[in-house]
Amino acid sequence: MTRPAARGDEVFHARLAQYRDLVLPALLRGLEGREPQRYLYGLIAQHLRRAGKGLRPALCLATTQAFGGDVRRAVPSAAALEMLHNAFLVHDDIEDGSESRRNHPTLYIEHGLPLAVNVGDAMQALSLRMLKDNLELLGPALTWAVVGEFEHMLLESIEGQALELGWIHDNSCEISEDDYLTLVLKKTCWYSFIHPCRIGALIAEGPGAATDPSAFDRFGYLLGAAFQIQDDVLNLIGDEKAYGKEIGGDLWEGKRTLILAHLFGRADGGDRVRLQAFLGKPRAARLPDEVGWVYHLLGRHGSIDYARAAARALGDAAARQMEVAFAAAPAGDAKEFLRWIVRYAVTRDV
Amino acid sequence: MTRPAARGDEVFHARLAQYRDLVLPALLRGLEGREPQRYLYGLIAQHLRRAGKGLRPALCLATTQAFGGDVRRAVPSAAALEMLHNAFLVHDDIEDGSESRRNHPTLYIEHGLPLAVNVGDAMQALSLRMLKDNLELLGPALTWAVVGEFEHMLLESIEGQALELGWIHDNSCEISEDDYLTLVLKKTCWYSFIHPCRIGALIAEGPGAATDPSAFDRFGYLLGAAFQIQDDVLNLIGDEKAYGKEIGGDLWEGKRTLILAHLFGRADGGDRVRLQAFLGKPRAARLPDEVGWVYHLLGRHGSIDYARAAARALGDAAARQMEVAFAAAPAGDAKEFLRWIVRYAVTRDV
Repeated sequence: MTRPAARGDEVFHARLAQYRDLVLPALLRGLEGREPQRYLYGLIAQHLRRAGKGLRPALCLATTQAFGGDVRRAVPSAAALEMLHNAFLVHDDIEDGSESRRNHPTLYIEHGLPLAVNVGDAMQALSLRMLKDNLELLGPALTWAVVGEFEHMLLESIEGQALELGWIHDNSCEISEDDYLTLVLKKTCWYSFIHPCRIGALIAEGPGAATDPSAFDRFGYLLGAAFQIQDDVLNLIGDEKAYGKEIGGDLWEGKRTLILAHLFGRADGGDRVRLQAFLGKPRAARLPDEVGWVYHLLGRHGSIDYARAAARALGDAAARQMEVAFAAAPAGDAKEFLRWIVRYAVTRDV
Repeated sequence: MTRPAARGDEVFHARLAQYRDLVLPALLRGLEGREPQRYLYGLIAQHLRRAGKGLRPALCLATTQAFGGDVRRAVPSAAALEMLHNAFLVHDDIEDGSESRRNHPTLYIEHGLPLAVNVGDAMQALSLRMLKDNLELLGPALTWAVVGEFEHMLLESIEGQALELGWIHDNSCEISEDDYLTLVLKKTCWYSFIHPCRIGALIAEGPGAATDPSAFDRFGYLLGAAFQIQDDVLNLIGDEKAYGKEIGGDLWEGKRTLILAHLFGRADGGDRVRLQAFLGKPRAARLPDEVGWVYHLLGRHGSIDYARAAARALGDAAARQMEVAFAAAPAGDAKEFLRWIVRYAVTRDV
């Protein structure tokens, strides 16, 4: 007999796949006929077909449905969200020097840096072109409202990325947990969680609707922080095949995570100096022994456990806030799916 | 006594500076208050203040004026054009491995590749945000028309860039002069010449106006090809200080220019093999002696002279087509300025 939780998990993943299937044709439309395939559109299509979880479009589509909207009206916006996410991934991998993604070499490793920078630019441009498809579907007022949401998410994400890269560039080792949470809000929460819900609700209810879009801000912030911290934990102790990226990559890249912020606040004396020296090296100069030593230090100070507990607490808070943000949405499959997203964010191992 | 041509040249440059001054505040607006300055907005402002010639916004503003429009209505679009141009420059320099621009180290050389990729992304996003300012100024129909122009120019330029990078990536040595002209149309002409005129005319006359926007396509193509070929000539034989970039950079980067396409069509036997081997090396492995040998070969086959003559012929054709495209515009300073832009494109030494 299947336990109810396992059954719920199956339903959740099946629905996630349904949303992915709904969005993929919109994502790929128009890529096939255009030239140059070999240096641009073929690379974009290949990247999109190596689909990730598809959480962002799913959040958007489920929110539209939860508020009684027609899911088809949200498909171009959901596809644009996924395209923009892919644009970020391609450039992030370059900026972070990441070597693998979704169990494949990253695009710049496979096709070289020049073509990869250009592919990311094209994906950003294409995501905005998709929003133009809304004009006929949603009318001008709602289309502009969605464009406004995109504009905000774009700049917040880029500002967050600048902060993260800047801290690494300057080898900042005074990053507090608050600094980290600010970073996550900007870099992750807006585009991955807050705006997908806001856009989904906007499309269901129209601008000036009963649901206050800022109700999703708090929900998406809590959920996004839980998700990102869990991601940081998995990056250090996950299963490489399931995770699809190299394990410990964040340490090799010197990423400022909650785990590292916790360690900055605990390590003292010689350890601190040694940690700072390790983080100040270029990636290529870091040694496996040194990465091993950082793991050891994290274990001694309980930094990974601390982060795991923080992810759970934030996940619990997100679950409560979800009931506030979606109070006006009637019970149903879409709302149940949204509850499962919250649960998934901190229990996933991939 | 000043000769009339020299006097005209002065008037041209004074007007170019006026247009630049009109656009700069719009370009910089909103950058000062925003964070992070140190890793993002400060770098953007610094890049914008190292202003180039400002040809794209000037073309747009002069076209609006030539057709009797209010120049102020075109300022946000002209600023967005210049912002997008800067976005392209920042990423192009990374993709090409260029070391200097406007007599300064390129942004990625000065601040590192990760921050520079992100700065380019921000500039692309900001250029589209500027278009939203049109909504109040121009109303929704015209605003959407301008957004449509941007969308086309964005993708054409990125496709052109993909072609250029792909040819280098694959070390293609069968590039014909026609291939080169297709490349220039996509990479340069649309965003630098055709769309600035089309947008300027749209703003003056509104969508569905008397002037057929495609009249500018032929003009901008001829002018853009003349301009780019002249740029390629200057890259090889210009004055480094005036040009602001390293002389011979295109050879070091292996760029496929009309000059190189001409040489591909002339060089035979051992020279061809040697040329292909030179172009197949990574930039860092190329030697000054080898670059010197390519210069020698170009001289022997008259490839630079050929390109210079082609630029002049295209410039003459652009001058004739200008009178067609702007036939409906009354005589005046703006129209005279546009005539000077054509003259400048092929006589400039910077």
